[in-house]
This record gives sequence, structure tokens and C-alpha cells, in this order.
Amino acid sequence: MGLEGLPEVREGDDVARFVADAAERAGGLEDDDVVVVAQKVVSKAEGRVVELASVRPSRFAEQISGGRDPRQTEVILGESERIVRLRPPLLISETRHGFVCASAGVDASNAPAPETVVLLPADPDDSAERLRARLHELTGRTVAVLVSDSFGRPWRQGTTDVAIGAAGLQVLLDLTGERDATGYELHATTIAVADEIAGAAELVMGKTAGVAAAIVRGLSLAGTGKGKDLIMDAGRDLFR
Amino acid sequence: MGLEGLPEVREGDDVARFVADAAERAGGLEDDDVVVVAQKVVSKAEGRVVELASVRPSRFAEQISGGRDPRQTEVILGESERIVRLRPPLLISETRHGFVCASAGVDASNAPAPETVVLLPADPDDSAERLRARLHELTGRTVAVLVSDSFGRPWRQGTTDVAIGAAGLQVLLDLTGERDATGYELHATTIAVADEIAGAAELVMGKTAGVAAAIVRGLSLAGTGKGKDLIMDAGRDLFR
Repeated sequence: MGLEGLPEVREGDDVARFVADAAERAGGLEDDDVVVVAQKVVSKAEGRVVELASVRPSRFAEQISGGRDPRQTEVILGESERIVRLRPPLLISETRHGFVCASAGVDASNAPAPETVVLLPADPDDSAERLRARLHELTGRTVAVLVSDSFGRPWRQGTTDVAIGAAGLQVLLDLTGERDATGYELHATTIAVADEIAGAAELVMGKTAGVAAAIVRGLSLAGTGKGKDLIMDAGRDLFR
Repeated sequence: MGLEGLPEVREGDDVARFVADAAERAGGLEDDDVVVVAQKVVSKAEGRVVELASVRPSRFAEQISGGRDPRQTEVILGESERIVRLRPPLLISETRHGFVCASAGVDASNAPAPETVVLLPADPDDSAERLRARLHELTGRTVAVLVSDSFGRPWRQGTTDVAIGAAGLQVLLDLTGERDATGYELHATTIAVADEIAGAAELVMGKTAGVAAAIVRGLSLAGTGKGKDLIMDAGRDLFR
């Protein structure tokens, strides 16, 4: 269920109140709902916005920009722990949180104004936890919260939304040790349910429709998973 | 909506009839429904099953098995166009279809019997198209069909379900040229909606519950996309 009518978010805004009000108009939150909020909205409320006029690009940023505004590239490099792949203007990096994604999650679309870019939240799990606590305060409902963003993937076209922050939810469903109908043990089968939920929510949110939050209802996945649990350890990762 | 009560599928079975019957019990199919069917079911109906007793492993298969049955490794190599990463027993390869996934999609879980493995459908888009046509024949409804499988991803823990075959649906939603609320043009924003739909369906299917198909209702994404449209061209891909 997409939540319509969220106002344009500015630094300091109470996003949970916007979500609670929009949910109220749609019949109200229920316990065990998963509330998915687009990263862009969370970042703007947290002031994670950079004015490009304040940025002086390094020579390296100019060299690898490939047509992008070099000041934006400078911001991307500042958010990057490590460059994973570079084919200007495409820059895939590992962010300080450990996410591997295009442009370190720095984005100019849906920014509050021209000549500004939006960064990922400093700690998306904290953001999710705060939203969850505030939604409980406002509505009395115990919900889960995901902060979602659109990530590309190697080998496949297009982006899918994934969970970069989580609170109140199992994010990975570990079936190791369970058996299928023929008695075969399902080795190492772990499902990234939080990413599937974020992707499902994207289907009713959209990038242009201005629907920046959604409710996913009917799952029983209460838990204590974190968005960072979805990051593969660099040591196990064959692609870093 | 997960479709309960699908019988165990054997070679030659009419999967569309099983789906139509299960859907009927759940209130019936509607036009524009997306019917998501697990790859394993489609493969079994198409006889894409190999008895390991019939396989003689090469020396190479023995060397790289890392504890896996070398006959299964031999089958994986037979389904592989190219090995992308190898850390025995983990083997990520490009399949003959162009998918990059673990074990070339060859799987022993949910196989029809011990000592057998299930391969991906020979042409999952054809499989989807046939299911779609047959569902139309049986129910009069014009639905879309996705054939789904669980794929791992670099950098992130856990699998998500993706669409390996499609019929009657837009699989990629291309927002290039559309503008966000501030007038910023959304460059190169393409959403892999078919993968998000497959992931959403997984949430109500599960690996152990024996729910091998689901209906996703309420989207308006009729189109002519194919599962193979979701494969990134090798030339554009920075990770092959």
C-alpha cells in the first residue's frame, strides 16, 4: 500500500508524523506492519544534503568524472571507503557503511533543490530505529521499519530496491537445517526477505509519483535484524 | 497470494492446470494478474532432471567439487558457458542462457528424488509464454507469467527471487527522460520490476512450505518483456 500525500521533506522534519498521518488517511497502521520509507526522505530530514557550491573538486575527481559535475564526484569520493569499479562516469564504490553501490549512494534526483545532492543517512539502522520508536509513540502500533534505496546489481539490468536500514524485523530468513518435501536438507539457504520487502514496496512507490513510503502488511517476520546484516563480509565476498 | 495445494509435479504434467485449479480455489484468476511460478516446478514438468547415476564426472569436476558430489559438479559444468568465480564448493557461472548464478542454477533441493538434480528450464521465456497461453485457454483470463528462481548477489547476504522467464509483462520500467518533483531528469533510471515482483511473490511462497506459485495482483504492467531482457550485456557488465 503506497502512502500518498507525504509533503516535501526538509531538514528537521518529523518524517514519522508524516508517515503516521498518511497511514491514518489510508485506514491506519496495524501491529506487525512493515513501513518502508525511501532513503531520500530520511536523508533530507536528517540534513544529509550537500550544496555543490560549497564543494571544491580535487584533480582526481575532475579526471574520473566523465561528464558528471566534478563537485558531485568529489562528494561521492568523500562518501566512499574504496572504489570497486570505475568506468567514468560510472563509479561503484564501497560506502563507509559497507554498502557497495553506484556513486556511493549520492544522488541528485529528488534533491531538495538544483545544485544540491543527497547522501545516504549516516546510520540507516539508527534512522529506522528512530522512526520505529516515534511511530510507536504517535500511533501505539508496533511496526517494523525499513529504509530503502534503489541499487543496481552485477549481471542484471535495472535496479531493485533493497533495505539499507531496518528495525523490528527479521532481515534474513535462514533455512539451514530445514528440510524440503523430499527430506533434502536445505544447505546454506538464506533468504534476504528485507530486500524482497523493499522491492515489493517499490512497486507501489515509484520514483516519479512522489510516493515515498509504503506499508507491507500480512507478513509475520518480527525480529531484530539490521540493514548491516545484509552486507556480505568482505572476506567472504568474491566480488570485492 | 500464495497458491496452496499444488500437487508434486512430474515430467509431462500440465502445470498451468495445477495453477488454474489452485487459483480457482483462491477465488479465481483476474485479467492482469501476474502469476509467478517457481522454476523448480517448471523444470520438473519439462523433464529437466538428471539422475546422478547416469553421470560420469571428469577429473576437473572432481578437482573443483570441494565436498560436493562430483557428478553434480559435472552437471553444473555442462550447464555452464563460463566459470565466473570458483571457490570450491562455490561455483558461480554464466549459464547457457546468460544468467550468472551459483551452480548454473543446478539444484538438488526439492528434486523429485534423492540422487537427482534439477536444471533450469531450457528456455524460461518459452516456458512462461506456454504457461500464459495455456492459462488463457483454461481460464479465459489474460495474465502475465513469471518463472522465478532464487539468486544470490555479490556484496549482499542471502538470496532474492528474480524472474528468469517472463511473458505478458513489462520487465524493466524505464524512467529515462521522466522528471522528478524538482524537475531533475532521471538519467538512466531503469527499475527491474519483474525481479521485484518475483521477490514479492517469494515472500508468500517459501522454500519449505510447498507453495510453488503465487499471484501478484493490482499492478498495471502489461507488456512484452522477456526474462532475457533482464540479463546485462556482457560488454556493459563490469563484473564478468
